[in-house]
Amino acid sequence: MDNNELQQFFQFFREIDKEKNIVRQTYLADGTRKENDAEHAWHMAVMAVLLGGYANEEIDLLKTVTMLLIHDLVEIDAGDTFAYDEEAKKTQRERELKGAERIFSLLPGDAALNMRGLWDEFEEGKTPEARFAHAMDNIQPAMLNAASGGRSWRERGIRLSQILERNKDTAGGSKILWDYALENIILPHVASGDIVDDRQGICGNDKT
Amino acid sequence: MDNNELQQFFQFFREIDKEKNIVRQTYLADGTRKENDAEHAWHMAVMAVLLGGYANEEIDLLKTVTMLLIHDLVEIDAGDTFAYDEEAKKTQRERELKGAERIFSLLPGDAALNMRGLWDEFEEGKTPEARFAHAMDNIQPAMLNAASGGRSWRERGIRLSQILERNKDTAGGSKILWDYALENIILPHVASGDIVDDRQGICGNDKT
Repeated sequence: MDNNELQQFFQFFREIDKEKNIVRQTYLADGTRKENDAEHAWHMAVMAVLLGGYANEEIDLLKTVTMLLIHDLVEIDAGDTFAYDEEAKKTQRERELKGAERIFSLLPGDAALNMRGLWDEFEEGKTPEARFAHAMDNIQPAMLNAASGGRSWRERGIRLSQILERNKDTAGGSKILWDYALENIILPHVASGDIVDDRQGICGNDKT
Repeated sequence: MDNNELQQFFQFFREIDKEKNIVRQTYLADGTRKENDAEHAWHMAVMAVLLGGYANEEIDLLKTVTMLLIHDLVEIDAGDTFAYDEEAKKTQRERELKGAERIFSLLPGDAALNMRGLWDEFEEGKTPEARFAHAMDNIQPAMLNAASGGRSWRERGIRLSQILERNKDTAGGSKILWDYALENIILPHVASGDIVDDRQGICGNDKT
């Protein structure tokens, strides 16, 4: 047994426990509190296992799930950046790169390279697995926002154009799931006023 | 698109959000609060991805990770049963079976059968994947108990014999990881008194 390698692994496992304290902007379905990154990662991983067959292209499911499990670890250092906070997003990449550098290098050799590689692949968003993982990363919070009565959207005055911009590549991961989410999760909350309807502005024609 | 099937999947995803409110007896590494089942599942899933190579036998990692992600869902109905609560453990199986019946049947056809099958396989603990998953399920909380200064062990007056009994099959999942955990996670907290040293009682000879 390479005890040294195991020491490194367990140091990493203790360090990533901090992800349970990184709070996101999404409320739990029951609205009682906001969820944290570890809960978010777990929820998406279950979703990916069950929805992987809806990806546009065939995906390596273990790779996709692993990507989802580890992609927010950088937020232990960088903090959660709200998807619609334009100021914070300006420095997000730099903050997260530093986090990736420190956190993944706690792992022993190959494991460090593999996990860092998966994080880079997720960030680049170009492989079928990364595209599907991004679809999960967008649909899961939308689902919770809807389930908790649209509260997070209302509190921030989120506009439909912002949601469509954020989701511009979601159909590239899964056309079926994006169509479903738009129809069943997002548009009902535009109709109810939880999401600001600015379609005239973005389409250049009347919203009727 | 089978919209009906997707409706069922998303009903399941909203339902399992409740796992984030099932609190366990394990403190986070920083000792600030106890962790919940969703966080526990995420933590173990990451550990399994990285430690799978230490399993005694070759394992299907996606199957193992999926098992870990879903095996506590039954606690949404059955509640968390503390590993050393002998009274609660008497009714645990019956409560959890009822939970499995209800929760997995929210899923559409094949997915319901597959997830229920994985839960049964975990419970039976006979396949290499189930054995390794149990090893993770035992080592992850021990690691956090140690990291948080042995508080959960002390508060409950946990004895070494109880820990060894709970872990009697851990080496069957991974001999290497059990040896590591015993040496580096458990025995130091016997030495410090966080775990009650009752070795004389269980071994029939002096503890020296």
